[in-house]
Amino acid sequence: MPESKLRLLALGAHPDDIEFGCGGVLLAAAARGSEISLCLCSRGEAGSNGTPNEREAEARRAAKRLQARIEFLEMGGDSHLEISAVNSITIAQQIRARRPDILVGPTGMPDQHPDHVVLSELCRKAARLARYGGLAELRDLPPHAIKHHLEYAITPGAEPSRDHSSIRFDISAHFAPWVELMECHQTQLRTRRYIELQTARARLLGLTSGVEYAQALYPTSDLVIDDLADLPASARFF
Amino acid sequence: MPESKLRLLALGAHPDDIEFGCGGVLLAAAARGSEISLCLCSRGEAGSNGTPNEREAEARRAAKRLQARIEFLEMGGDSHLEISAVNSITIAQQIRARRPDILVGPTGMPDQHPDHVVLSELCRKAARLARYGGLAELRDLPPHAIKHHLEYAITPGAEPSRDHSSIRFDISAHFAPWVELMECHQTQLRTRRYIELQTARARLLGLTSGVEYAQALYPTSDLVIDDLADLPASARFF
Amino acid sequence: MPESKLRLLALGAHPDDIEFGCGGVLLAAAARGSEISLCLCSRGEAGSNGTPNEREAEARRAAKRLQARIEFLEMGGDSHLEISAVNSITIAQQIRARRPDILVGPTGMPDQHPDHVVLSELCRKAARLARYGGLAELRDLPPHAIKHHLEYAITPGAEPSRDHSSIRFDISAHFAPWVELMECHQTQLRTRRYIELQTARARLLGLTSGVEYAQALYPTSDLVIDDLADLPASARFF
Amino acid sequence: MPESKLRLLALGAHPDDIEFGCGGVLLAAAARGSEISLCLCSRGEAGSNGTPNEREAEARRAAKRLQARIEFLEMGGDSHLEISAVNSITIAQQIRARRPDILVGPTGMPDQHPDHVVLSELCRKAARLARYGGLAELRDLPPHAIKHHLEYAITPGAEPSRDHSSIRFDISAHFAPWVELMECHQTQLRTRRYIELQTARARLLGLTSGVEYAQALYPTSDLVIDDLADLPASARFF
Amino acid sequence: MPESKLRLLALGAHPDDIEFGCGGVLLAAAARGSEISLCLCSRGEAGSNGTPNEREAEARRAAKRLQARIEFLEMGGDSHLEISAVNSITIAQQIRARRPDILVGPTGMPDQHPDHVVLSELCRKAARLARYGGLAELRDLPPHAIKHHLEYAITPGAEPSRDHSSIRFDISAHFAPWVELMECHQTQLRTRRYIELQTARARLLGLTSGVEYAQALYPTSDLVIDDLADLPASARFF
Amino acid sequence: MPESKLRLLALGAHPDDIEFGCGGVLLAAAARGSEISLCLCSRGEAGSNGTPNEREAEARRAAKRLQARIEFLEMGGDSHLEISAVNSITIAQQIRARRPDILVGPTGMPDQHPDHVVLSELCRKAARLARYGGLAELRDLPPHAIKHHLEYAITPGAEPSRDHSSIRFDISAHFAPWVELMECHQTQLRTRRYIELQTARARLLGLTSGVEYAQALYPTSDLVIDDLADLPASARFF
Repeated sequence: MPESKLRLLALGAHPDDIEFGCGGVLLAAAARGSEISLCLCSRGEAGSNGTPNEREAEARRAAKRLQARIEFLEMGGDSHLEISAVNSITIAQQIRARRPDILVGPTGMPDQHPDHVVLSELCRKAARLARYGGLAELRDLPPHAIKHHLEYAITPGAEPSRDHSSIRFDISAHFAPWVELMECHQTQLRTRRYIELQTARARLLGLTSGVEYAQALYPTSDLVIDDLADLPASARFF
Repeated sequence: MPESKLRLLALGAHPDDIEFGCGGVLLAAAARGSEISLCLCSRGEAGSNGTPNEREAEARRAAKRLQARIEFLEMGGDSHLEISAVNSITIAQQIRARRPDILVGPTGMPDQHPDHVVLSELCRKAARLARYGGLAELRDLPPHAIKHHLEYAITPGAEPSRDHSSIRFDISAHFAPWVELMECHQTQLRTRRYIELQTARARLLGLTSGVEYAQALYPTSDLVIDDLADLPASARFF
Repeated sequence: MPESKLRLLALGAHPDDIEFGCGGVLLAAAARGSEISLCLCSRGEAGSNGTPNEREAEARRAAKRLQARIEFLEMGGDSHLEISAVNSITIAQQIRARRPDILVGPTGMPDQHPDHVVLSELCRKAARLARYGGLAELRDLPPHAIKHHLEYAITPGAEPSRDHSSIRFDISAHFAPWVELMECHQTQLRTRRYIELQTARARLLGLTSGVEYAQALYPTSDLVIDDLADLPASARFF
Repeated sequence: MPESKLRLLALGAHPDDIEFGCGGVLLAAAARGSEISLCLCSRGEAGSNGTPNEREAEARRAAKRLQARIEFLEMGGDSHLEISAVNSITIAQQIRARRPDILVGPTGMPDQHPDHVVLSELCRKAARLARYGGLAELRDLPPHAIKHHLEYAITPGAEPSRDHSSIRFDISAHFAPWVELMECHQTQLRTRRYIELQTARARLLGLTSGVEYAQALYPTSDLVIDDLADLPASARFF
Repeated sequence: MPESKLRLLALGAHPDDIEFGCGGVLLAAAARGSEISLCLCSRGEAGSNGTPNEREAEARRAAKRLQARIEFLEMGGDSHLEISAVNSITIAQQIRARRPDILVGPTGMPDQHPDHVVLSELCRKAARLARYGGLAELRDLPPHAIKHHLEYAITPGAEPSRDHSSIRFDISAHFAPWVELMECHQTQLRTRRYIELQTARARLLGLTSGVEYAQALYPTSDLVIDDLADLPASARFF
Repeated sequence: MPESKLRLLALGAHPDDIEFGCGGVLLAAAARGSEISLCLCSRGEAGSNGTPNEREAEARRAAKRLQARIEFLEMGGDSHLEISAVNSITIAQQIRARRPDILVGPTGMPDQHPDHVVLSELCRKAARLARYGGLAELRDLPPHAIKHHLEYAITPGAEPSRDHSSIRFDISAHFAPWVELMECHQTQLRTRRYIELQTARARLLGLTSGVEYAQALYPTSDLVIDDLADLPASARFF
């Protein structure tokens, strides 16, 4: 397995979103030497299970397994995220500070926790603001243009419409560590079968992709390729 | 430039469709050693300009520039293409005979020559039939599963809706040969500015992709990738 | 469990489509006394596994488990289905002969076996023709208007876009018999994990619906209800 | 007519929205013993006709005819509704206080009064927040999960795209009382023919549903049904 | 009212489709001196009411009221329309013979009589074929390029999705003659309230357009205008 | 060229948006005597090139070429635009003050500068608020109902989906002045080829419309026409 020292910045509205939505893909990237930063926009204060302190501790344990740097952004707390210039700029600041090749955030489909939808739009805005040279609030950090902005879906209801194509990542080699990664969020597993939900999704996507387990990310821009020979594989299994 | 000996099979309803719709991409593939086969489903018999003989000769000249094998399929002639099991099987036969990695055909958007729409659906069906083991008509040729089915758009009206993502190919290094390739179809350039149409499209796509000239192909299946590090570039220019 | 003697007519392009696509729902209906008729439009002649005779025998075994009447329609065989007036009228004839309350057929999404797409459109047409009084070919049978036309998706690629709402059926009580029903199609299980595909789909749909296992059917018309109190449950679980 | 003691909570941006958008359905529910609560987010302060006091009086008269409890929420007044955490929480509070089975609010189609679009999104968010156990602002009221969130369209421009299926309610038996209910809003009938607009819509929907008059509500989640025999009727009339 | 001697060619699958779908617009055009040709693709042979002879007589009476030439095309009869090259060419021949400025045919939405969907696609194809110079079957008639192809919707289920914009025609001045025009089709009014359906639609569209009655046609191409001052009115009423 | 003294109000988020997005159309309108007002919502303070003072001076030079009145609205500056009641009312105030026949603003497609998306929604809201009689903040100015709200796309990524039809304006006669108009924004031409992007778009649209150069505007309401004879031309060229 060759090294590929990418820089990734993944954002989550709540402490477990990233691990559930794209944990397998991040583990694969970490295994190849990528440098991962996580930014969480709340401590899950509104959740029915777990205190904010417990949630933060769980997130930190998961970040450790991902060998990732973790940061908590102050945006009013769980269920209080709003689309605002201030919040966009807060995330743009993280983009400038971390200078990621790839930005990873949630999809904006309405059928999910409202914070996910808000964060999705904040990420889109922030990716733009991070590269504008004149923004007064960000003067201390040089502009940065990311190479990719990819989105993850935490539930089936968060998956974009089928017309919107996805990129599927083969996470078969990282399946067991991914389950352990999700198990860091013990408080969230008390009342709902989140891990079974995620593994059923990954198995289904794997079966239709001709691999054991897969997770999908949704690109926000078209791909640009030099030649047909550089085209990745495609999912034509059933 | 490394060699990449892919096998490509491109289908066109009329003698000039392939060169206008994806000629630059095919030239790039040819330059890297790919083996290209073209199948034309008519000799442009219904066109206002050029006789069937002239059209065939033009197509053969273009095929030569692409170092491609060329074949004319009998499906009733220009403006007579129909969606039928016989026609699907005729194309499936070509797929089994050529055994391509990549199948290339037109998009199915309604706003174009009716034959394009029909051929688009025939290609979709044929790609399936080519891999079914029991088809009596195709018993002489072993089943074959293509790796990709990509579609080209001959006019702006043939481009799929924006929700459907495309893959853009940088054809800057092959721009001049592509123009010469299109110029093989002299009879078609008498009354409409096809070459200007295609080069304006390629320039616009290039500008928004951060390269000189680009052509888009539309995948019919999701991509499957091993790792984020294998992700191609993305178009985030304007 | 109250009796509900509905009459159902389910159509499949190939011998296993119905059982994979909506077998659980049909078992539930059979258990409540519904009268089920199956019409198959081929014997799977083009398939890579199983002879037409084996496929027919498998289908008859499955029909027996469903306590269903079964009929094979002659439409040219597997991979030869075409949209034609003759084929629409053949199905309309079955509708008039069986007089079902509910017609069940495949969805028309393009990403699947071409026969499924064709059969989907034939069913839509046939449901109309069955109720037109003047059709000469059907003069022997009185017109019949079905109450519902529901569609099943055999693979994830056959599921309609998310904007199109579905009705989810709780099949938890019929899960084991459904697996046995699918196992009737032994020839099809040799090379692909169809049963695992279907059960993973049913589990995922169940998890997001708050039940163990569910299968979705896609209505082709809006529902008409007398009062909010008659509204079925809704899927608001994750 | 059997009793069905549902609890309904309907929200409107302005005093007449609920009666125009789904008054017939609410009257039918009231007639069967349902308990209806109305929440209005303004007194129509920006309207060209009627003072806020007149508008409030009209709304109270209409509520009386619906045997409904009515409440006015403070959100800045007509034309000042904004998507904010505070506003979402205000509505979530009403949901916890009223504990409805069914939440009814406006659709989010952009072609209508901007307040409707905002309220639509606030309702979606509030339905989520109402069931999260940890929300500090709502600690005094136990979490509540609604069973349904249905949306009404006040004008044809507010109706969702046709791909989004609706549920049609037969309001024929409540047509005359519905017209009287709408007539409560005398100030709004001075310059535009709102009642004719609503009754023409209800007649058209009735004609295509095989009943006299119908109103549509748009569900935000899929339905879950036990058995095909429990399926409501469907609209297959023209 | 100035004269405007347009040439119109309207196609219908059945004898009453044109009058129900766009009769008011055609009456308005006739009143300003346009020359109207009607082509019917069947005599309604499959209908539950009326013999083919009666249906033809009704259509001829309606054509007379429209001062229109009428022709019956042979395509296999009601419920037997198929998408084929022969049928497309038959219509293209009519286009070349009549040389219309505007071609009018049904929309292609699936939720209607299957013949309408087929005719919609045949019209799209024919409009193309009519202008191709080399088509052998049409050699006797010079090619003709229409200026517009507009589509009508016979039922609400035939109206395209709301994203597809329509052009609304004020038919208030022609309302009474339009009702009389529809009344020519007496056999069709025995069992279904078609006229009430159409007038309810026209009233609803009129109310939202700020006129008494309106009918919509759906353009298949973008409009090209010289200057903002030439822009027609827009529907911004409710 | 007849005079057409329309009143136009065009809004831009940044100093160059209007000229790039619809400059050719505005020049054509100005040439026919229309009265144009421009409102800019920032001075491009966040841009990588040009100071706010330079940007304002460039915008004023461009306005002069358009013989347009220009105004700068205070909304927090570039990259700080937010959807709020205050901002909507600020624009509604301009609408009441200028009383335009046509309001022109950016499209709301997400793939562009976040300010454009925000301004698009603010314009939609403001067009509504401007005609509501009771709005306290606007009491000093009589309500005003615009006749049209049209949207421009600054980049290909800002163009709405193809299902949404556009109106194309022939700007061939104003091409050279349009290029000069765009050249007013010298600071923006330093690092990106904006003018080449815009002229390639206009050429492509012209080629497919049968004219030299065209720009598209996207209507937000259906058109209402008296008679087919008043229909503008349509784009049926390739």
